[in-house]
Amino acid sequence: MWPNRDFLDLVGVELPIIQAPMAGAGGSAMAIAACEAGGLGSLPCAMLNIDKVRAEVGVIRQRTEHPINLNFFCHTPAAPDSSREAAWRAHLAEYYEEFGLDPAATAPAVDRAPFDGAMCEIVEDLKPEVVSFHFGLPGQNLLDRVKAAGSLVMSSATTVEEARWLEDRGCDVIIAQGVEAGGHRGMFLTENIATQAGTMALTPQIADAVKTPVIAAGGIADGRGIAAAFALGAAGAQVGTAYLFTPEARISDLHRAALRTAGDDQTALTNLFSGRPARGLLNRIMREIGPMSEMTPAFPTAGAALAPLKAEAEAKGRAEFSSLWSGQAAGLGRDLGAGDLTRQLALDAQRLLKALAP
Amino acid sequence: MWPNRDFLDLVGVELPIIQAPMAGAGGSAMAIAACEAGGLGSLPCAMLNIDKVRAEVGVIRQRTEHPINLNFFCHTPAAPDSSREAAWRAHLAEYYEEFGLDPAATAPAVDRAPFDGAMCEIVEDLKPEVVSFHFGLPGQNLLDRVKAAGSLVMSSATTVEEARWLEDRGCDVIIAQGVEAGGHRGMFLTENIATQAGTMALTPQIADAVKTPVIAAGGIADGRGIAAAFALGAAGAQVGTAYLFTPEARISDLHRAALRTAGDDQTALTNLFSGRPARGLLNRIMREIGPMSEMTPAFPTAGAALAPLKAEAEAKGRAEFSSLWSGQAAGLGRDLGAGDLTRQLALDAQRLLKALAP
Repeated sequence: MWPNRDFLDLVGVELPIIQAPMAGAGGSAMAIAACEAGGLGSLPCAMLNIDKVRAEVGVIRQRTEHPINLNFFCHTPAAPDSSREAAWRAHLAEYYEEFGLDPAATAPAVDRAPFDGAMCEIVEDLKPEVVSFHFGLPGQNLLDRVKAAGSLVMSSATTVEEARWLEDRGCDVIIAQGVEAGGHRGMFLTENIATQAGTMALTPQIADAVKTPVIAAGGIADGRGIAAAFALGAAGAQVGTAYLFTPEARISDLHRAALRTAGDDQTALTNLFSGRPARGLLNRIMREIGPMSEMTPAFPTAGAALAPLKAEAEAKGRAEFSSLWSGQAAGLGRDLGAGDLTRQLALDAQRLLKALAP
Repeated sequence: MWPNRDFLDLVGVELPIIQAPMAGAGGSAMAIAACEAGGLGSLPCAMLNIDKVRAEVGVIRQRTEHPINLNFFCHTPAAPDSSREAAWRAHLAEYYEEFGLDPAATAPAVDRAPFDGAMCEIVEDLKPEVVSFHFGLPGQNLLDRVKAAGSLVMSSATTVEEARWLEDRGCDVIIAQGVEAGGHRGMFLTENIATQAGTMALTPQIADAVKTPVIAAGGIADGRGIAAAFALGAAGAQVGTAYLFTPEARISDLHRAALRTAGDDQTALTNLFSGRPARGLLNRIMREIGPMSEMTPAFPTAGAALAPLKAEAEAKGRAEFSSLWSGQAAGLGRDLGAGDLTRQLALDAQRLLKALAP
């Protein structure tokens, strides 16, 4: 039924579709729906504490017997840098003034913790069929423990060099993350966004470079993209932005409204919200400061200075300082539940693959 | 034999492959080989004078009876700006010093003339089956004359908005130019490279927005990319960088050598060589100044200041100041003649489309 079964047979799922883990936007409901439809559902854990991960996985295990993917970030946390933080706040001073905010104001900011020993214990305990990482892989000891727990390991490569690096360390599935993709670039051996390749160019070059099954990601939001992924040598596709249109997505109404009217040319890579490049819909702060700044504090702390502005603007119904993560194919989004979306993506891809045959 | 015949039937060619017009690198030999193999060969005319265009088309018409595409730029030439030119030269002063060159030195620079009445007369006289434009379309009067001469009109769109604009003006074939593509971005309604979409995201969104046949371009260098183009809703593919590996390509040995070792992550969009963003292999000037500069003189005059440096460095066997145009899929390039390449691309795509069927 599918032209390449490497991923399907390895992971034990019916459909070659990974519901992308989207920290903050995805939770157990989305993962359950994707799993039950036959895809690989993912629970993004980067912004969850240990208790929350345990609770969410508990819900998932109650509702589906299909394989599940737990996703973690594995960055090295930056040391606090108060002078850099101060300079960044000073750069934002006019906005604080506009909103009548104290320049030293704080607000709850997004926290993203890296995978560590405590999280690894949860993996060892809950034994998810798949564990995926963003920004490379954790240290060898942690990685060994994850593999010993029986979990398959996936990670994203944004270059051929990163794909080879992942394969050399025993990664079981490599996600070729083209530059179209929404959210954080998984890049970990380079910091140069100018040289990041699109999915069309990246996927076949990674497929040629490694023996590990490759999943294409970036700009894939319908059956056409999934069929194209197979043509390019991938064993499946990871889909993110399309799932942000589902009721299971835990995003603000402002984010949802912005996605519904998003065109092909309304996203950019930006480091303003976290300190690392991530693709989101253009908004006021990105337009006025420019989407990439050399002044932002290091990942993941950059968002703290924007948090009071974000809260104040959102209260006024304005997403001017909010991260509106989106890939470049938001224009292909549809109003479907996460389960129906998963089934429809697979059906459309199947029909298309059949229709393409000479 | 092909899943979508819109382009084939419209243009009257056998294979859904356009050999991309690459000003400076392509000539009659490459076009003839592509045409004779069954693809649509293209003669880039932007850097040719009227006599040369006439001579090249004469050679092509002698050697092939298949349809041919003449490509022109249709930018508005910038007025000379001596202060901007002087500031740019000052910015480059240390390089002039390093090579012992007079900062006021001149050398033959690349000239790119826009399509005008005189060129249009040639089109009316030679009646190419296809005329393609880069940077939008020429004025209505010139466009009407081209269409009255019986030529089909193609142009590149880098956004959905540009595609709609081209369709509204009667463009017969729209090339969806993803950000992976080598050489100049065809962008004409936007100057923002940060929001340019990859081929995977751009092609289906343009295909949804217009009724005009769409050709995918950008990151396509083998049969996988061509098959993927059809999956994404295109009626064919335009291939550029892969043809730079053919003996018919009129490129320097330095450029050829750089292409042979190019990876997926070794290109960037740069405006240093012409004043407009174009994708090329990273070299010294791009790394040291940064690939995009706000100081470059307007297109197409920016290259003049680099010309003496380019000549001096190339004489020493160094491509440090040369434009090394390349898309992001140079890593897929093969040593084949332009005719064999065209045939092989089609054969590989056909086999793959068959193998993909469930």
